[in-house]
Amino acid sequence: MNLPSTTTSTATDTATDTRTNTGAVLYGTRDLRIEPRPVPAAAPHEVLVEIRAVGICGSDVHYYEHGRIGPYVVETPMVVGHESAGTIVGVGRDVSPARIGETVALEPGVPCRRCPQCLAGRYNLCPDVVFFATPPVDGSISTYVTIDAAFAHPAPVGLGFDQAAMAEPVSVGVWAAQKAHISVGDRVLITGAGPIGLLAGQVAVAFGASVVTVTDVSDFRLQTARKLGLGAMRADAPIDGEYDVLLECSGAAAALTAGMRTLAPAARVVLVGMGADTVSIDVPLIQGKEISLTGIFRYANTYPTALDLIMRGAVNVDAVITHRFDLEHTEDALTIGRRDPLALKAIVTPGR
Amino acid sequence: MNLPSTTTSTATDTATDTRTNTGAVLYGTRDLRIEPRPVPAAAPHEVLVEIRAVGICGSDVHYYEHGRIGPYVVETPMVVGHESAGTIVGVGRDVSPARIGETVALEPGVPCRRCPQCLAGRYNLCPDVVFFATPPVDGSISTYVTIDAAFAHPAPVGLGFDQAAMAEPVSVGVWAAQKAHISVGDRVLITGAGPIGLLAGQVAVAFGASVVTVTDVSDFRLQTARKLGLGAMRADAPIDGEYDVLLECSGAAAALTAGMRTLAPAARVVLVGMGADTVSIDVPLIQGKEISLTGIFRYANTYPTALDLIMRGAVNVDAVITHRFDLEHTEDALTIGRRDPLALKAIVTPGR
Amino acid sequence: MNLPSTTTSTATDTATDTRTNTGAVLYGTRDLRIEPRPVPAAAPHEVLVEIRAVGICGSDVHYYEHGRIGPYVVETPMVVGHESAGTIVGVGRDVSPARIGETVALEPGVPCRRCPQCLAGRYNLCPDVVFFATPPVDGSISTYVTIDAAFAHPAPVGLGFDQAAMAEPVSVGVWAAQKAHISVGDRVLITGAGPIGLLAGQVAVAFGASVVTVTDVSDFRLQTARKLGLGAMRADAPIDGEYDVLLECSGAAAALTAGMRTLAPAARVVLVGMGADTVSIDVPLIQGKEISLTGIFRYANTYPTALDLIMRGAVNVDAVITHRFDLEHTEDALTIGRRDPLALKAIVTPGR
Amino acid sequence: MNLPSTTTSTATDTATDTRTNTGAVLYGTRDLRIEPRPVPAAAPHEVLVEIRAVGICGSDVHYYEHGRIGPYVVETPMVVGHESAGTIVGVGRDVSPARIGETVALEPGVPCRRCPQCLAGRYNLCPDVVFFATPPVDGSISTYVTIDAAFAHPAPVGLGFDQAAMAEPVSVGVWAAQKAHISVGDRVLITGAGPIGLLAGQVAVAFGASVVTVTDVSDFRLQTARKLGLGAMRADAPIDGEYDVLLECSGAAAALTAGMRTLAPAARVVLVGMGADTVSIDVPLIQGKEISLTGIFRYANTYPTALDLIMRGAVNVDAVITHRFDLEHTEDALTIGRRDPLALKAIVTPGR
Repeated sequence: MNLPSTTTSTATDTATDTRTNTGAVLYGTRDLRIEPRPVPAAAPHEVLVEIRAVGICGSDVHYYEHGRIGPYVVETPMVVGHESAGTIVGVGRDVSPARIGETVALEPGVPCRRCPQCLAGRYNLCPDVVFFATPPVDGSISTYVTIDAAFAHPAPVGLGFDQAAMAEPVSVGVWAAQKAHISVGDRVLITGAGPIGLLAGQVAVAFGASVVTVTDVSDFRLQTARKLGLGAMRADAPIDGEYDVLLECSGAAAALTAGMRTLAPAARVVLVGMGADTVSIDVPLIQGKEISLTGIFRYANTYPTALDLIMRGAVNVDAVITHRFDLEHTEDALTIGRRDPLALKAIVTPGR
Repeated sequence: MNLPSTTTSTATDTATDTRTNTGAVLYGTRDLRIEPRPVPAAAPHEVLVEIRAVGICGSDVHYYEHGRIGPYVVETPMVVGHESAGTIVGVGRDVSPARIGETVALEPGVPCRRCPQCLAGRYNLCPDVVFFATPPVDGSISTYVTIDAAFAHPAPVGLGFDQAAMAEPVSVGVWAAQKAHISVGDRVLITGAGPIGLLAGQVAVAFGASVVTVTDVSDFRLQTARKLGLGAMRADAPIDGEYDVLLECSGAAAALTAGMRTLAPAARVVLVGMGADTVSIDVPLIQGKEISLTGIFRYANTYPTALDLIMRGAVNVDAVITHRFDLEHTEDALTIGRRDPLALKAIVTPGR
Repeated sequence: MNLPSTTTSTATDTATDTRTNTGAVLYGTRDLRIEPRPVPAAAPHEVLVEIRAVGICGSDVHYYEHGRIGPYVVETPMVVGHESAGTIVGVGRDVSPARIGETVALEPGVPCRRCPQCLAGRYNLCPDVVFFATPPVDGSISTYVTIDAAFAHPAPVGLGFDQAAMAEPVSVGVWAAQKAHISVGDRVLITGAGPIGLLAGQVAVAFGASVVTVTDVSDFRLQTARKLGLGAMRADAPIDGEYDVLLECSGAAAALTAGMRTLAPAARVVLVGMGADTVSIDVPLIQGKEISLTGIFRYANTYPTALDLIMRGAVNVDAVITHRFDLEHTEDALTIGRRDPLALKAIVTPGR
Repeated sequence: MNLPSTTTSTATDTATDTRTNTGAVLYGTRDLRIEPRPVPAAAPHEVLVEIRAVGICGSDVHYYEHGRIGPYVVETPMVVGHESAGTIVGVGRDVSPARIGETVALEPGVPCRRCPQCLAGRYNLCPDVVFFATPPVDGSISTYVTIDAAFAHPAPVGLGFDQAAMAEPVSVGVWAAQKAHISVGDRVLITGAGPIGLLAGQVAVAFGASVVTVTDVSDFRLQTARKLGLGAMRADAPIDGEYDVLLECSGAAAALTAGMRTLAPAARVVLVGMGADTVSIDVPLIQGKEISLTGIFRYANTYPTALDLIMRGAVNVDAVITHRFDLEHTEDALTIGRRDPLALKAIVTPGR
C-alpha cells in the first residue's frame, strides 16, 4: 500500500529509474491536481502495478466535493480512486517474478492480518486496514501503485482492465448477496438502481434468485435495469410483490421503509447504500416476521468470485460504464455524475 | 385449542359429566369475571388438561388494561392466560391413554402445520396459528383446557407446576439465544431486568456466554439479577464493556440505542421486548461493524430445551415468581405489577 | 395418500360414480398387473388428482426386479410410481374448490406433521411419513390418486405434465445442493451421469457453481452432460481439477473414493446415490482438509424451487426424458433401463 | 516461530547475553537428548517466552517412539512439545514492551496469513502453517521460544502455567464442539476417555449439552469421567441412549461404528481421534438420518475461549494432569503413558 510515508523514491529492484508516476491528487474541496508522484517501491510481499483503469465511486466524489466523509478528512494531499486494475510490472523480494505481466484487479483494502477480526476471516472489519483513498492513504488513480501481492487478484484471461476494475463494485454486490444468504428461489428487491444496485441485481440473479426487482426514481436507470434482465419499478409508486430479500442500495431512509413493507416472513435485509445516518425501523414488523437486518462494510474474500461472475458474463459490467476519461481529466470524471443524469459509472484510465 | 366455537359441552369419552370448568374471562377493559365455562372436549389429536399454574404475562395485563393489543381486540369474552402447566386428565381418540396423569407444560400456540412456514419449521410464523388468549381464542386460566397432544410437553419428573408453566417465558429466552447464536465465550448484554430479561440472562449463561450483564432502572431487579449470578448495571448510566450480543428485553427505544453502542464487530442484536413501535437505527454503526439485528415472535421447538434448563437448575424460575393467586383472585394477579414495584412474575393456580 | 385401507369406494362429493381408476400394480418380483382400482376419495384436506405423467425411478425398478428394497417388502399388491403430475379434479371438504383444474406436481411423501422432525422442518425424516410406492403405500401410476392438498404443488403456467413430474428428481438435486451449501463460485464434481446426476448438475449451475463436472462410464451420458452445458469426464480416468463440492450420484463406492481425492480444504460431500451399503472413508483426508460429508433422504420444502427452476429453463428436464409409455405399457417402462443403454428417464402417462 | 534456521544467536534487544536455553531434542526413534540450544531472537512481530509448562501430547510420543507421523519425518534434531505456556520476557520491534511479564498460552501453529484459507479465517488449514514440533519445526520443551505475538495469548489473571498450557487440548475440544454445533439441549456421546475425550466432554457441557456420555475400555478413565460430572459407559458394551452429536476421540474404527448406531436424525459426527486410516461408513444410516460427519485439523480462533473455560472452572484441566516432570526428565514424560495405565496428561516444566 502506498501510504504517504512509504511512497518514497527509495530505489529497489522493482522500481527502475526510467519510470515516472503521475497521480490525481486531492488537496481539498474541489481542488484536484494532476501531478508527478514518486514511483512507489514494492515491499517484500508487494507488487508494483501499472494502473490501467479506475472506476469512480461515490466516495471519491464525496471527498472531492466535501473534503471529508464523516471522521475521515483530507488533511494532506491524497491520490483518489480505489476501483482499479492494471498490470504487474514489478515484484517485491518475496513474490514470484512469474507474476510480472499479469492483469490484476486490486482489492483496495489490505488488513493487518494479526487482529481477531482478521484471524476470524472478517478482515474487512480490521481496525487497522489500509484502504486506498481513505485519508491519509493514497488511492490508485496514478500511473503506478504498490499493493500486497495477495490483494492483486489475477484476472481471468480475456478480461479487460475496465472489467477487472469493476470487480470492486461487483464485490459489494457479492458480499451483500452472501450476507443476505440469497439462494435459488429467493425473490429479491433492490432499492436504488445506481451502479451498485444494477450490479447487485445481476449478482442476485447469479445467486439463483427467481425474481429480482430494482426500484429507482430515474427512468433511465430503470430502463438500464430492464436491459440487464432485471425487473424494474418506480420507487415513488407502491411496490408490487412479496420479497425474501431486500438489498437497500439507495441510501434513502424512505426506500428502506417502503422496501421492508414488502417482505415475507423470515426475510433478510442488507443495508448497502450510504446516505441516511439513521433509519427508523418498524419493531412489530421486524418481530412479527422475524426479519433479519444487517449492514455491510466493504467485503472480504469476494474478488475471485466477482471476477468469475464478470468473466462468464453473469454480471454485465460494461452496461454500467457510461463514461471514460484519461488521467488528466479525472476531475471531469468526478463531476460527470452531477452534470449528466445519464451517467452511471465513469472510468479513469491512467497508464498507457 | 379451545376456540370459542369448539368449547362446547359435547360429550366425549374424555369429558365426564361430573367435571365443572371455571375460567377467568375478560369481557373488556378492566372487566374480568370468574365464571363457569363448558368443559372442553378433546378432539382426536388433543388432550384434556387440568390446569394447575398459569403465569401472568405482560400481554395479559395489556388486554386487561386496554382491551386490545394492536390489531387484536377483545370483542367477545375471552379467557386470559397462556403460560400454563397442568395434568393430562383425558385424551382424544388418536392419543395414547397412557398419557393420562402426565404433568405437562402447554405450548400455547398451535399452528396449522400445512402452510409453507409450518413445513419449513418456522411454525411460530404460521399465519393461522391458534394462540391462547389472543382474541378470539380463549386462554388457559381455567380449570380445564384442551390442546393438541404434541403441544402438551411432558415435564421432566420432579418439576412442579409453577416451574413447568415457566417453560413459556424461558422459551422466549431460548429462542432469543438461538436467534442470537449465543455460544461459548460470547459477551451478552441484556437491557431490561423484568421476568423475560432475568430468564433470558440465565439462558445466555446456559448457552455458554462468558459475560452476561443485565441493565435496568430498578435496583430491586438489578439485585435479583445479581442473586442469579448475572452482572447488573443501571440503565441510566453509561454501560461498561464490549458485547457480542444484545438482547433488548425492555421495549424501550433508548435501551436499544444505548445497548448498540457497546457492540463489538459482527455482533448480533435481538429485539425481544415490545413497547416502542419504531426505533431509530444508526446506519454507519450497523454497517461499520456489520451488526445483525432481528426480532423474535414467540418461539418454535423450544419447549423440551426450556424444560430441560429448568429441570437441571440452569435457569432458576423460582427467583422470578414473586406472587401466587388462586383462580378467584386472577384480577389481583393482573394488577399486582402496577401495585407492587417488587413484583416480577405472578402465578395463578386453577385446578385443585 | 391412498393407503390400502383408505382407497375404498366410499362415495364422496369429489368422487363421482362415472370415474374408473386403473393402476399399475406390483404383485411381486416381475409380476406387474394393470388392473382396475377403486377411485380413491379425498379426505377433508386432500385433493383428487387425475394423473397424467409419472417418471420411473430406480426404486420402482428395484421393487419390480427384487420385490423389496432393504426392509421394505412388497407383501400385498402395490401400485408403483411416485414422480407424478396431473390435474386436480376433486377436493376434500377443507380445500378450496378453486383448485379444481390446477396442474399439480405431487410431492410423494406426506409426513405426520406432529413429531419433532416435522415440527423442526425436517419432515423428510418423519418416521411416520406416508410415501407413494413404499410398501404398503400405493404409488401413483394410476388414473386417480388422492394426496394432501399442501403436497399437490401448483405448476407454473405453461409447464407440461412431464416437466411437472420431474419436480421430484429435480427436488433431489435441489436438496443435495442445499445440503452442500452450493453458492456462487463453487466448483462442483458430480459422480454419476444418470438422471439424478444430470439434473443435480444443472441445479448446481443454477445455484451459481462456476464449474460443474460430471463423471460416468457411459459416453452417451457424458455426451448428454455436455449438451446440457456441463463438464464431463470419464469416471475410469483420473479426475482433473480441484472441487469444493462432491455430489456422489452413482452409488458406487469407488466413485466416492475417487471424487474425495479431488477435494479442496473445507469441501462438502453429499451422498445422493444409493448402492453401496458401506463406503470406506479416508480419515486423514477428512481431518486434514476438514471435509464435511452427509447423505440425503428425499427432500423437504423443495417443490416450489424445483418447479421454478424447470419453468425458467435453468434445469432442462426434457433432455433426460428419453422414453414415454402409456399406462398399459408400464412394465416396458420398468425394463427399458436394462434393455436400452441410451435410456435415461422413462415416463408413464396414465389419465387421458 | 523457532525454525531451525532462525534459532540463531543473533543478538537483539530481546535476547540478553546472560540467558541460556536448554531443549528436549529428538534425534530419532527413542533418542531424546537434553542439550543447550541458542536463545532464539524475537522477530519484529514476535515475543520471547520463557516456557514454564508443556503438556505431552500423543503426537510427541509418536515421534519419540517411531521417528515420524505419516509423511512427517524427524530428519534433523527437533525440539518436541507444543502444548505450552510461559512468561513473556522479551518482545520484537513491533510489539509493545508492556507485554513483558504476561503469562501466555502459546498457540503452536502460526499460519502464513496470506493464502485463501488464512484470509477466509480457516488458518488451521493453511498449507504453510509453521507448527511447533512438526518436523522440521522445533517445539516448545525448551527454556525459551519465540512466537508471533498474536499467538501468545494472555492468560486470565490467576491461571497457572499448567492450566494455561492446557488451552491447547481444550482448544481441540472447543473446535470439535463448534464443528458439531453443540448447543443447549444436545445429547453428546464421546468415544474415548483419554485427555482429549475428557476435556471435550467438559467442553460439551459448557456448550449446553444436556447429556454427555463418555465411553472407554478403561475403568480408571471412566471413573475420572464420572468425577468430572460426565456420564460414563464401557465401550465394549452396547451403548444406551440416543445422541445428537458424536465426538469420536479414540481413533478406533469400531468406536465410530458403535457410536454412529446411537444417533438421532440430523445428528452430527466429528472425527477427533487419530488412529484408523480408514473407517467404514454405513451409507443407508448416513442417508436415512441425514447425519453429517466431518473431521477436525487442530483449531482456529479457539484460544481465548479455551482459556476462559479453564479460568471459570467450566473445564477442569487439573483432573487430567496426572504427572509432572522437570525438563531433564522429558523422556520419562514421553514414556509414562506406556508405563502407567493411570496416566492421562503429563506436564514438563522447563524454565525456573
